[in-house]
Amino acid sequence: MNIILAEPYEVVDSRIVLRDYRAKHIVKVLGCSTGDLVKLGIVDGMRGTGTILSMHTRYPFTVELQIELTHHPLEKPFIDLLLAFPRPIMLKRILSQATALGVGSIIITNANRVEKSFWEAGLLDPSSYREHLIHGLEQSVDTRVPSVEFHRRFRPFVEDVLPERIDTYSHLLLAHPESKNGIRKIISQKPERILLAVGPEGGWVDYEVGKFKACGFSSFSIGERILKVDTAVIALHGHISAAREWMS
Amino acid sequence: MNIILAEPYEVVDSRIVLRDYRAKHIVKVLGCSTGDLVKLGIVDGMRGTGTILSMHTRYPFTVELQIELTHHPLEKPFIDLLLAFPRPIMLKRILSQATALGVGSIIITNANRVEKSFWEAGLLDPSSYREHLIHGLEQSVDTRVPSVEFHRRFRPFVEDVLPERIDTYSHLLLAHPESKNGIRKIISQKPERILLAVGPEGGWVDYEVGKFKACGFSSFSIGERILKVDTAVIALHGHISAAREWMS
Repeated sequence: MNIILAEPYEVVDSRIVLRDYRAKHIVKVLGCSTGDLVKLGIVDGMRGTGTILSMHTRYPFTVELQIELTHHPLEKPFIDLLLAFPRPIMLKRILSQATALGVGSIIITNANRVEKSFWEAGLLDPSSYREHLIHGLEQSVDTRVPSVEFHRRFRPFVEDVLPERIDTYSHLLLAHPESKNGIRKIISQKPERILLAVGPEGGWVDYEVGKFKACGFSSFSIGERILKVDTAVIALHGHISAAREWMS
Repeated sequence: MNIILAEPYEVVDSRIVLRDYRAKHIVKVLGCSTGDLVKLGIVDGMRGTGTILSMHTRYPFTVELQIELTHHPLEKPFIDLLLAFPRPIMLKRILSQATALGVGSIIITNANRVEKSFWEAGLLDPSSYREHLIHGLEQSVDTRVPSVEFHRRFRPFVEDVLPERIDTYSHLLLAHPESKNGIRKIISQKPERILLAVGPEGGWVDYEVGKFKACGFSSFSIGERILKVDTAVIALHGHISAAREWMS
């Protein structure tokens, strides 16, 4: 945890009392004392510091902080992620790692090679996935929570929902290991906003690839090595971020 | 598992009998029958197919294969990785993910911010880490096992071992979040072989950065977001691979 994050409703008169894992972190990991400053941000708000006003350094840990907010959130990430529903244990890791890397939103849809049971794994509700997003922000010292949405039916999503959004993107990219295009072939101007689609283990089926192409997606590959979805998401994010650096 | 890997000593007269997780995978996941072909490779050798000669499809699973080797291993990856010893659970994941992404070798050394206990976690022996490398190869359909070495004392490593090797690299890169350089600033010609150094949680200390710079390393950063080591390794690998694509 590289920043303590507080929900807006937790703050009263610029003060907050922490009693959970955050208080424990300040006591046990940071080893702070009364009067010390810790890095603190408001979820979806500004960043700054918290000055420790009082604390209880044994279980149950309690830390009271005076908050001063001085820095705006990091710039909104320019990559949005469109995923075929991954294995739930992997989805949790992806939510956290993608949030740490920086994504604007995470859209999860169905695909032919997605196991139906994944949709029943109890991950569709913010109360179950939000903590993974927060952990990603605590890691990367950001406050901006990516939006997350689920679309259980592929065809209505790709025929009705997706076409209404594509105008907001400068590039629609479909990661597809079978493609012969490197990323350099399909990014010829500096990307503004990118929507990156990553398929399930085993890849998108031809029908799905066709639907994405009809929407305007360009397929590309970062090499012949087959990667797990969680590794692929991070590696693709790296490739695209570097591509943007090279085009600027 | 996208390829069945066999150790050379397991193969007798171009045949092999599998009795472990590989046999189970062929039976339960691939659902093969006698006569079917599976993708098969020899560790540090060629790739091809195995034809199922006979099999026992219940516990204890057994599959006998006739091997035909037709394809050379993938090209040797151009990135070598130099890591400060990460948290052991994370090291296992990094070994597997970095192998899947493709690295020539993985060198692990000490650093000021490495917990001493990591060195006692029983990971220094091939019998404990090799399985993670093999899993990475099984994922990425490669056969070339990265070399792994451990150097417990930082100073002798960086003063005596490292200087003797740096001639084999076109670029020595030090990932350092505090650096103001993007990767584009420090890669001005197409990289041949790169040695990428990634620090521990909390980063290298100034003394360590100074030692690497004295060796010829250039520091760079891929952004202000702080990443966990496992996420950082993959993202950095992506950035560097894209940089090479852009320079070619």
